[in-house]
Amino acid sequence: MSDRQTSFLLTDLYQFAMMQAYLEAGATHTAVFEFFVRKLPASRNFLMAAGLEQVLRFLEDIRPSEDELSWLEQSGHFSPSFIEALRSFRFTGDVHAMPEGTVFFPNEPIIRITAPLPQAQYVETRIINLVHIQTVLASKAVRMVLAAQGRTLVDFGLRRAHGAEAGLLAARASYVAGFNGSANVQAERDFGVPAFGTMAHSFVQAFDSEDAAFESFAKARPENVVLLIDTYDTQEGARRVVKLAPKLQALGISIGGVRLDSGDLRELAKAVRQILDEGGLSDVTIFASGGLDENSISELLAKRAPIDGFGVGTSLTTSTDAPALDCAYKLQEYGGQARRKRSAGKATWPGRKQVWRRLDSAGKLTGDVITLEDDPQRGVPLLKQVMRAGKRLGPALSLKETRAHAASQLDALPDALRDITKTAPYEVQISPRLRALAAEVDRFIDEGPDGKP
Amino acid sequence: MSDRQTSFLLTDLYQFAMMQAYLEAGATHTAVFEFFVRKLPASRNFLMAAGLEQVLRFLEDIRPSEDELSWLEQSGHFSPSFIEALRSFRFTGDVHAMPEGTVFFPNEPIIRITAPLPQAQYVETRIINLVHIQTVLASKAVRMVLAAQGRTLVDFGLRRAHGAEAGLLAARASYVAGFNGSANVQAERDFGVPAFGTMAHSFVQAFDSEDAAFESFAKARPENVVLLIDTYDTQEGARRVVKLAPKLQALGISIGGVRLDSGDLRELAKAVRQILDEGGLSDVTIFASGGLDENSISELLAKRAPIDGFGVGTSLTTSTDAPALDCAYKLQEYGGQARRKRSAGKATWPGRKQVWRRLDSAGKLTGDVITLEDDPQRGVPLLKQVMRAGKRLGPALSLKETRAHAASQLDALPDALRDITKTAPYEVQISPRLRALAAEVDRFIDEGPDGKP
Repeated sequence: MSDRQTSFLLTDLYQFAMMQAYLEAGATHTAVFEFFVRKLPASRNFLMAAGLEQVLRFLEDIRPSEDELSWLEQSGHFSPSFIEALRSFRFTGDVHAMPEGTVFFPNEPIIRITAPLPQAQYVETRIINLVHIQTVLASKAVRMVLAAQGRTLVDFGLRRAHGAEAGLLAARASYVAGFNGSANVQAERDFGVPAFGTMAHSFVQAFDSEDAAFESFAKARPENVVLLIDTYDTQEGARRVVKLAPKLQALGISIGGVRLDSGDLRELAKAVRQILDEGGLSDVTIFASGGLDENSISELLAKRAPIDGFGVGTSLTTSTDAPALDCAYKLQEYGGQARRKRSAGKATWPGRKQVWRRLDSAGKLTGDVITLEDDPQRGVPLLKQVMRAGKRLGPALSLKETRAHAASQLDALPDALRDITKTAPYEVQISPRLRALAAEVDRFIDEGPDGKP
Repeated sequence: MSDRQTSFLLTDLYQFAMMQAYLEAGATHTAVFEFFVRKLPASRNFLMAAGLEQVLRFLEDIRPSEDELSWLEQSGHFSPSFIEALRSFRFTGDVHAMPEGTVFFPNEPIIRITAPLPQAQYVETRIINLVHIQTVLASKAVRMVLAAQGRTLVDFGLRRAHGAEAGLLAARASYVAGFNGSANVQAERDFGVPAFGTMAHSFVQAFDSEDAAFESFAKARPENVVLLIDTYDTQEGARRVVKLAPKLQALGISIGGVRLDSGDLRELAKAVRQILDEGGLSDVTIFASGGLDENSISELLAKRAPIDGFGVGTSLTTSTDAPALDCAYKLQEYGGQARRKRSAGKATWPGRKQVWRRLDSAGKLTGDVITLEDDPQRGVPLLKQVMRAGKRLGPALSLKETRAHAASQLDALPDALRDITKTAPYEVQISPRLRALAAEVDRFIDEGPDGKP
């Protein structure tokens, strides 16, 4: 489940095919690949980088087991000499990257891999697989954080996440983006994401009456009583809570909150707030869930729905409106020569690159420039080296540190970018030297290495 | 990665909270939960059930490790007596289900779990997590199968799938739905899904010329030469293939195919077909990829693009237009009493149910009826018992058998449902006895067990 358990075979067949061909052709010089996003999904004003920690662990740990080598051998896909060469596979390259939680924009490399070509090629599939999903998820979650204006946000989406790993990484990425926690117990264990939980409709249904269900739950979980009140009739449920409260109080149990999971959440929250307040339960919080996303959260708060926290499931963990990014991991340099893909609509900027970010006097973003690595600009460089020769340059950041970095990135966003509706694009320039290099690579491709077409 | 490794902690906190409360309240009678989809995504005419095999393995294997119990204990979320009770946790219930690959419609239960309430409650999260994603994926893949009219289809989407498990299950679910294979090597090992692969742009870019790249690749992989020809200029690439063919022929190597990955695939395929044919390479197939989905495949074939096979990535593995289903796993009976949730917009049909399917004389679907289990109808019952007291009733179906079942289900679809555009809904009736039971449960909820409100 966790990234430490990545199988060596979790890759595309062509990665092995190309590795074998590279080895046979002696194409083992240093290659530079960069991961970037080509364009923003329709509704996004920016993206938030996530997944680097899982990439670094993958690069530290990845190697074939004997078992995997035997399977590859009997599969008949590859030559025995290639399989023998794989035996000693380790990642020995360098990694430069933007820290997780950094806000970024199209065409900006967020991870750069520098390694012998067969290694840098092989790691492509899993690097994209890990960075893509977490960046998708953090970029979605952060919109909910902006919409919720400080209300509690909890990830409820494990069940509809795309498998176990997606569910775990959703809990992690949303916490980085500013969520308060997740319902996912494993995520508390693996990543320290605080686990939250209430009760389900089935609990209420299993008892002969809602009263009996509420009382049983409160007695069993006295330290954290959040009662789900919409199984049959929400306002009736709220009245039962008021009636139950003194009885529980006598046992030393106080009700922490109620949860609404269906219906018109604004109207119901108002009615429930009134019932609770009139019943002397003004400290009891209202938590809402049920098909929520950043737009409905924003609308509920705009209409002053008295909701203290939101549980968000499907729309978060599948990033329903934008479940994928148009991203790529592309060869930008090989054997010291800049490279460029020119396929229609998919051309790339060649060379080892850096991104410089300019901030105004209030610390807000005012524009980025993508340059070659050795072409410093005004502002702050965003990519830093984090791995050299297969070893990390420092200890892993704690998730809390990463979360704090993400929060400071949100603080630095100009108001237009903080809007969850689409706004004018942020300015990202391509430096003159980078443009010149691209033109030079084109001439090389058009004319061939010897100057002839 | 595989379902055998499901952590006991991969669940929602509230499942443990409810289990503890159930145990303390003595609510451990037999519960019946059913998994169903509430409504079809906008573009779907039907869904295809998938994921049962992973569910059965999960139910056979799931138990807490000592390590997980220790973690739960120190987490402070639960009582010591509850953690002690978890020590002996095993799933001892029954499972009824539609076979994987079965076509189904809204409100039809596809999996029913009958077990002591705490067990049946606990398994909810992972069951939904496994069945939801594979059903999403199979239901998307089958649209591509219908659109491709027999052309080769290969899953290229591991990199943008939501994590490792999603990538593996996408390869499996798409193969069940009728794909020919996947680029995912691990899926060949884990599930026997045939692995396919060509080459990437980086391979072409790493050589000083496209000619050198093609030749190196063909020599290294003589048994399966598919050359990617769009890195710089697609038609130029095709002419290089024609020029290279005799040289390779002299070495006993024949070129199997070319791949196009960008640009106007219809125009390019026509031009490339002509170049190859005129160059005596009419046996060389054309394989297309690059942002394809069922709509673009359908359009390319309607316009007679000479394409022999398609590689589909992101749109398949993230089911981009419908990455989630409105599905639920709901308590329908407890302690012999039918139960029903009535939350606004989310009411369920109570009781243990069966789905009966009527076929016409040509074997095509003409309508379904959802009934109580003991209320037989005309047609074929779709749910069968597959597990009793925690043990499977027969050996696991092979993936090829499941794939054959899915193909026969597609054959039985009336033409309207085979259309990838939205058509009139298929008729699913609720039997009179089921309606009567729902009304009876409502009376019970409204009036209380003693007949008083």
